[in-house]
Order: sequence, then structure tokens, then C-alpha cells
Amino acid sequence: MITRAAQEAARRRAIVLFDQAGIVARADELDRIEVADFGLGELEQSGAQILTLVDTSQIAAKVLALLPHQVLPEHRHPHMGGYAGKEETIRCAWGELYVYGPGEPAPHPKGRPPAHRRQAYTVWHEQLLRPGEQVTFPPDVPHWFQGGSRGAVAWSFSTKATDVADVFTDPDVRRETLVVD
Amino acid sequence: MITRAAQEAARRRAIVLFDQAGIVARADELDRIEVADFGLGELEQSGAQILTLVDTSQIAAKVLALLPHQVLPEHRHPHMGGYAGKEETIRCAWGELYVYGPGEPAPHPKGRPPAHRRQAYTVWHEQLLRPGEQVTFPPDVPHWFQGGSRGAVAWSFSTKATDVADVFTDPDVRRETLVVD
Repeated sequence: MITRAAQEAARRRAIVLFDQAGIVARADELDRIEVADFGLGELEQSGAQILTLVDTSQIAAKVLALLPHQVLPEHRHPHMGGYAGKEETIRCAWGELYVYGPGEPAPHPKGRPPAHRRQAYTVWHEQLLRPGEQVTFPPDVPHWFQGGSRGAVAWSFSTKATDVADVFTDPDVRRETLVVD
Repeated sequence: MITRAAQEAARRRAIVLFDQAGIVARADELDRIEVADFGLGELEQSGAQILTLVDTSQIAAKVLALLPHQVLPEHRHPHMGGYAGKEETIRCAWGELYVYGPGEPAPHPKGRPPAHRRQAYTVWHEQLLRPGEQVTFPPDVPHWFQGGSRGAVAWSFSTKATDVADVFTDPDVRRETLVVD
């Protein structure tokens, strides 16, 4: 749960990050930036600001702004009926992005999820993305990201987005953010 | 057919346009910008500079630079076997882009294909895109674009790209550009 004031403050911080990253968006798109706290009520630590540019029945193109050290919690995009699940390419546009997926765990990871949620982070193979660098996750592969010390902006290019069906490792996560006055 | 010098000159003009548009790309990506003359040998009039950022078996994300008044010739992305054909969203990032597809023809279109190729342009419903504005073409729908007086930069977000299978209205078009020293 976040307050409407906190939502608007995060949206404005995202707009500054998008501007620094050279992202071109219309005013009506910026008005609709999603501020997601994943139901955890600790937006500065766990959350994301999401600008959706394309969302068809086939593909999605989104831009994510992460505040400094903000973590987008570990999740996967599952198979669903006839749909193989979302394939997603994450491409850093600005700042530094720490990206984690399956594989050899980093001995000294730069990413730091909130200590009280450490058990909800199970994949620790690290890729540090700087602007222009990217990684592609096939469907159903768990992954999580964290912004660097100045935050980060990243593109998400994917097959059909099915956000509410995403499976998060943390049982406390709720994908839809409740906003209160 | 274009010379290697013309290819490199067009690539450099594209890099300037991409920079003006705030596009973030690595040096190795910029080295691979495709300069396409569509086999017509009149690059300033008919052609495109194409930067591919994502190209998986499922989706593609590209950025197109069009020189001033340069036309990307009319084409469609056909069905192929089990693939419905490429769905494509064109989003203007910089400059002005004139986009044409099926529908009510513009009475006074801004777009001007080369006069000697006028018969290869059959759809004249006009949409003028400024930065942040976009249009989505379903598979198999003919479309063509032209850059404005300062050129244009546009994103192409799509399902799987199958460029060499694109069907061009102009029988003179060859999708693969021959580069000579």
C-alpha cells in the first residue's frame, strides 16, 4: 500500500530519470506511469516505476525506472495455456543495473535485497548492465534486478505482458498496488 | 547498390540522428547499422538506416533513422507457415515521420515518393507522427514511411522480424543491399 502523495512523488522521480535517459514519451504516458510497491509497503527498497509504451496482444515495450538501490523482486513469467510465457530482454538505458538469474552465484554480489526478505531471493548469478548492455530471459526463468547508487533506467522488450500472472518468489508480494488517499 | 563510402557516410548521418533522439547504443551496435537502399540505387530518396537492438526468435526492437525526405518503400509482412506475420509498432522518437497505410487517402499528402516510383505506392491514409506518437500495423497490412524535412528517428517494436520475406509493392526492390568498394 502506498499513499497517493508517495505515488506522485515516485512518478516525478521516475520522470527525471527517464529524462536523463533520453526516453521520449508523451504527457499522457507519463501521467500513467505505474508506481508498483508489489504490496510490500516499502517502496524505496522494493518497487519499480513502469512506463508502458506498447502493450498489444503480441508484444510489450516498457521502460522501468528504479530509484537508487530499489529492488524489483524475484519473479518468473510462467507458461499459461497456449502461451509459452513472457520472453523478456532487459536493456540498460541509464545508470547501473544489477541483474540476477540462474547460474553460478556471484561470490560478492553488488545487489542487496532488503535483509528481512533475503530468503525470497534464490538466484544469484550476477550481470552488471551499463547503458546499452542487455540480457534476455526465456519464459519461466526466475530473475530480479536492482538499481545502482544513482538508480537506473531500463527498457523491457518482451512478448505479451501478463503482469498479474507473474509468479514471485516472495509469498508476501501482491502484484497490484493499492493506492490510498 | 551502394559504395562502401556511401554506406559509411549514411551510417554516420544515422549516428547523429540517433544521438539527437537520445538513443543509447553501444559502439559495436553502431558499427552494425544497416544502410538499406532496397536495391534501388537512390539512397537519398529510397532507403533507411536500421539499428537492431533486439532480434530473438520471438520479437525485435529496432531504431530507424530516415534522412530528410527519405522514403522506406511500401511493403507488408506476410503470413509464413505457422507464423501469422510480423506485427509492428512504429513510434516516432525524433523529427517528423509521415506514415501511410490502408484507409481514406489523404487529399494533400505530405509524403512524396520518388515520382518515377509513384505506381509502387498504393496506400495513402496518412498519419503524421511527432515524438512519442505511434501506430501499430497488424501482419500483412501494407505501409510505408517518409522522414520529414530534417529526417526522422523511429522505433520499430515488433514480433519476430523476417526482413528478407517482406513483400514490397515495387518489383524493383531487393531487400538485401549490395555494397561495393
